Amino acid sequence: MIKIAIDAMGGDFAPDEIVKGVEMARDRYPELEFQLYGTESKVKPLIQKSDRITLIATTDEIEMGEEPVKAMKNKPDSSMVRAATAVKNGEADAFFSAGNTGAILASAIFIVGRMRGVERPALASAFPSFGGQHDDFVFMDLGANAENKPSHLYQYGILGSFYAESVLGISNPRVRLLNNGGEEDKGDEVHKAAHQLMKDTDAFNFLGNVEAREIMDGTADVVVADGFSGNATLKAIEGTALTMLDQLKQSIKSSGLRGILGALLLKPAFKSLKSKLDFNEKGGAVVLGVKAPVVKTHGSAKADAVANSMGQIQTMVQEDLAGKTAAFIKENADKLKVKKSAK
Amino acid sequence: MIKIAIDAMGGDFAPDEIVKGVEMARDRYPELEFQLYGTESKVKPLIQKSDRITLIATTDEIEMGEEPVKAMKNKPDSSMVRAATAVKNGEADAFFSAGNTGAILASAIFIVGRMRGVERPALASAFPSFGGQHDDFVFMDLGANAENKPSHLYQYGILGSFYAESVLGISNPRVRLLNNGGEEDKGDEVHKAAHQLMKDTDAFNFLGNVEAREIMDGTADVVVADGFSGNATLKAIEGTALTMLDQLKQSIKSSGLRGILGALLLKPAFKSLKSKLDFNEKGGAVVLGVKAPVVKTHGSAKADAVANSMGQIQTMVQEDLAGKTAAFIKENADKLKVKKSAK
Repeated sequence: MIKIAIDAMGGDFAPDEIVKGVEMARDRYPELEFQLYGTESKVKPLIQKSDRITLIATTDEIEMGEEPVKAMKNKPDSSMVRAATAVKNGEADAFFSAGNTGAILASAIFIVGRMRGVERPALASAFPSFGGQHDDFVFMDLGANAENKPSHLYQYGILGSFYAESVLGISNPRVRLLNNGGEEDKGDEVHKAAHQLMKDTDAFNFLGNVEAREIMDGTADVVVADGFSGNATLKAIEGTALTMLDQLKQSIKSSGLRGILGALLLKPAFKSLKSKLDFNEKGGAVVLGVKAPVVKTHGSAKADAVANSMGQIQTMVQEDLAGKTAAFIKENADKLKVKKSAK
Repeated sequence: MIKIAIDAMGGDFAPDEIVKGVEMARDRYPELEFQLYGTESKVKPLIQKSDRITLIATTDEIEMGEEPVKAMKNKPDSSMVRAATAVKNGEADAFFSAGNTGAILASAIFIVGRMRGVERPALASAFPSFGGQHDDFVFMDLGANAENKPSHLYQYGILGSFYAESVLGISNPRVRLLNNGGEEDKGDEVHKAAHQLMKDTDAFNFLGNVEAREIMDGTADVVVADGFSGNATLKAIEGTALTMLDQLKQSIKSSGLRGILGALLLKPAFKSLKSKLDFNEKGGAVVLGVKAPVVKTHGSAKADAVANSMGQIQTMVQEDLAGKTAAFIKENADKLKVKKSAK
């Protein structure tokens, strides 16, 4: 049995959608067991059937706007801190939350714990890949770090490759570095140095730089970015997609009956586009480089996304992603050290 | 009369679309005079009517893939270098090219010349603003620099405000800093320090940070970014817009007769969406912080975009954007110096 520690109070629709999602996952994945950390009076009434679901009562919650590290330290009996602590103590195999992103990162790094040899854990997520051999690619760091050194980016190549291989089933994943041009000498000092480290390694399959315009074109299975520009790129993609759908809606509305009719006829096409672009539905973002699987969904996640994340966690645990990554890093400690001298 | 020096050989469709665009602009703007720098045998046959158009024969061209600074130095008789030199020598008021972006930047900075007091010129462009009071906002630096200091970002606030005011006609433009979160303490060291410089100034109207998700939402008239993440954000926006239009087309195609009918009915709505998003049609990107207007369009620009850029240049010259900016920087030299100590 795989045990997942769940922060039942985190997210815009918590605890309702979290509990609903967990029950969906329970019916879907027979090998999963769920620990729901949350306020008893709020969570208990929501549980329809308690098979493989244990409620562990907590007294506190971390809110969306709170300063992450402070909140984590000041609220030891919050649903989030208790769930992360369960993983640290070996009572659970993985930690899930839809709450405050900064607090999830802090709990992952300081409670679950950084993997030995990893300098900076990163936030990663699968994105749709159009026109490539695979449906998705891994994009990281999405903002766990505001500032990165070349050696961090180099290590992301390793962490991302293991994730792409274990969870997305892509063998020998093609790694690219997000940069402001395709040529080798592009970028600021950090990206130039990271490019050299990646080019010289045999720890993963590095294919060079990629520009933000092309990351969804299917030429990479892992796109490594520094946390600052990775975050900006992620948000620009989300913002543009939303703006376009919104503008299209308005254009349709203002074209009268003709627009209504056309929109009705194209409903299936719009639906298929929306589902392809809805990367939040597929599962959650993961914190890579910590000792156990940590998955977060968007704060606005509904039951479906929560249930999908449980499937994602099952794969990560079954494939022993954390164990395999840690073993590789341990075996290659010398290689990583050599690289560190260049950071 | 306003004289514009035009690189007739730069761009994917040069010289044909450049000459066509210039003739359109000649018919549209009676106060403009055009100097076409290019290979005589190629350009001369294209000119329909030579009113207010002078052909100046050059013998060389800078190609799209060439190393910018090297190309600029090694090709003194290229159409681009000659056009930029005409501005330097006072023979023209502004310089236009659709060629190699790096070479345009190099020519702008080293030939036209950096404005006194400006540390780093930047590439800026107008983008559509949805739901705000104004149709467009200024986004910069789009990649003139791979690396920025806080003082550069601070100066972009000044350069961008003058552009928004003079060319877009926005009074007291609202300036925001592209960052990985809205709160004041967000970002890496460079963005934190830039935020403080901007917050403490009365040189422009600073309203705080903005995330890439919201830059098109109409809450800013000038969005200042470092060149690296500005470039990534620009390319992510372009890539996402293209991918979505492409995916929508494919979804429609695969939904048979129903799709064809729906698409026909929605044709006006799609067209209106496309024109709203087509920021390349509106005009070109400008190099701010140099001594005279320098405008570049996308390499794939057609005659329409070329002609629109001429209108944009006319406004920049008539409003004396460069002169006003330089005067402000001179008057406030002390203020800028104080700021420099914090860079």
